[in-house]
Amino acid sequence: MSRITILTESDLRAVVQLDVSAVDCIERAFAALATQAVAMPPILRLDIPQFRGEVDVKTAYVPGFDGFAIKVSPGFFDNPKLGLPSLNGLMILFSAKTGLVEALLLDNGYLTDVRTAAAGAVAARHLSRPDASVAAVFGAGMQAQLQLQALMLVRPLTSARIWARNHAKARKLAADFTSRHGIDVAAVADPREAVRNADIIVTTTPAEKPVLMAEWLEPGQHLTAMGSDAEHKNEIDPAVFAKARYIADRITQTRVLGELHHAIKTGAVAEDRHFDELGAVVAGKAPGRTSAEEITFADLTGTGVQDTAIANLAVSRARDAGSGQTIDNKIDKGDAA
Amino acid sequence: MSRITILTESDLRAVVQLDVSAVDCIERAFAALATQAVAMPPILRLDIPQFRGEVDVKTAYVPGFDGFAIKVSPGFFDNPKLGLPSLNGLMILFSAKTGLVEALLLDNGYLTDVRTAAAGAVAARHLSRPDASVAAVFGAGMQAQLQLQALMLVRPLTSARIWARNHAKARKLAADFTSRHGIDVAAVADPREAVRNADIIVTTTPAEKPVLMAEWLEPGQHLTAMGSDAEHKNEIDPAVFAKARYIADRITQTRVLGELHHAIKTGAVAEDRHFDELGAVVAGKAPGRTSAEEITFADLTGTGVQDTAIANLAVSRARDAGSGQTIDNKIDKGDAA
Repeated sequence: MSRITILTESDLRAVVQLDVSAVDCIERAFAALATQAVAMPPILRLDIPQFRGEVDVKTAYVPGFDGFAIKVSPGFFDNPKLGLPSLNGLMILFSAKTGLVEALLLDNGYLTDVRTAAAGAVAARHLSRPDASVAAVFGAGMQAQLQLQALMLVRPLTSARIWARNHAKARKLAADFTSRHGIDVAAVADPREAVRNADIIVTTTPAEKPVLMAEWLEPGQHLTAMGSDAEHKNEIDPAVFAKARYIADRITQTRVLGELHHAIKTGAVAEDRHFDELGAVVAGKAPGRTSAEEITFADLTGTGVQDTAIANLAVSRARDAGSGQTIDNKIDKGDAA
Repeated sequence: MSRITILTESDLRAVVQLDVSAVDCIERAFAALATQAVAMPPILRLDIPQFRGEVDVKTAYVPGFDGFAIKVSPGFFDNPKLGLPSLNGLMILFSAKTGLVEALLLDNGYLTDVRTAAAGAVAARHLSRPDASVAAVFGAGMQAQLQLQALMLVRPLTSARIWARNHAKARKLAADFTSRHGIDVAAVADPREAVRNADIIVTTTPAEKPVLMAEWLEPGQHLTAMGSDAEHKNEIDPAVFAKARYIADRITQTRVLGELHHAIKTGAVAEDRHFDELGAVVAGKAPGRTSAEEITFADLTGTGVQDTAIANLAVSRARDAGSGQTIDNKIDKGDAA
């Protein structure tokens, strides 16, 4: 008999929030990536062009975590016409020792939102100036809001600016954020103005052409690009590579999917140029910020280790709270028909 | 709100059996592979050597089927020491239109057993002689038994021989099969004797060196190799390629995983040599058996279209039967933290 825990999105929202312990959990996963025999195969991708659908499957085994997660992330871009969100998905947690299913996490992408934002906090913790107080965010969607919350967990933010192509949406997010989180957030119409004097800049847009130009960057700034999780996405001017120290979440992945991919394509960066990874910085195997003047640039495309880490956290929290349902699944290796 | 059906292994055993309609369903999937815009990405593979674990993830979108399945198949080879089966797994059925999770099929590998056996029946239906009455099976595990049952669905079998490295196991299977299914099944100690005068030969072993030699084959025989689902597995003497007409389930996959892989490696077959696929034969785009004397050879490594087909069948049967549990999963795209 195998006992499986089933957690709905509501169950998961009740036990996992974007807080310091979520950030610490994701940080531990990045450290493992740099120091342990992590197994993280390339992403499996299924396209269903007939319905504008694309599905990513990510996984990673991380020594030190009891389970490994397999995450399925469908994006179906005609869904809003049907009154449904474009992005959904679930995670499955398996025992790393026996391969048995331990839990089904029906999170509709919630845990991905949290672990993605948490990675932004990890990057800011290790690469931004400790006194960073002014943030700029590009984009006005869920990740824009979450990245700002994530930064507040690790840096003494006092104000922020939001630029988005849809200025009304940026204004709404700015007002909501100010009233909820008590820091001064303003929407700005000019992206260059958002960047001026900011300490940390985070881009979260689905842009396919650069929205942040190298000439706008100032000494001491830290930049995190979150938007580029697919080949065709590109938020950052490749000339930034000449001005900033670049850190990948996973170099084999950012060469193919991330901002680095576009910099290589345009010839701004040599294909085999070495860059450090965020995990090495976390583990102390590569330097973090080396001076108050340095410009740092983290390229986060999303990794399976983050999914494995957040799924373990969620299931252990849910067990402590006694939440979710359980299903007893009899294993019958008898006559198959 | 999204409503998800959860089916345990017992639920699934009650609604899906290895029968003619399962064979027809898998046949339809093979036909689609040859005639429609099927999307079937390469298998995702995760290895956890610390626990002798390996995990395969397969998927395929097949036009004409409402849902697409993602199948996770863990194999953890230290499990028997813990009193657990080595092979497990589950399938998830998603709407091909919206990407929403429709059903979780906690089958512990049962549906894989059925769809694998059904593919053997499809191959025999199109490639063996219609009057084939004598079968030979290599191996004495679950697939040996199921392949024999599958052959009985499509050919007028009257007798069978089983050869396995473990002769006692072969004897047990032969006796059990005879008493249950009423055909004359004998265990033989010499694999060559098993092949002599057989009409259909099916190999289901985990062999890593050929167990079936080319010189044993006789005119008119049909051979299906099921065992080679990983790079290191190899059941069939590469010299068979010079004697038999070879049909792949998926040529891009058998070049890497199947018997063809080993024939290419030993130089028996040129890397770019063209072979027909089973789907093309089913769809009438490539010939099946062309004469009573021809020797045919199907190399079945297992494809995502089979998983998508059997998962759709299982969920539609379960809905008709009102079986399984449902979970209402509220989709909350609000404040993520």
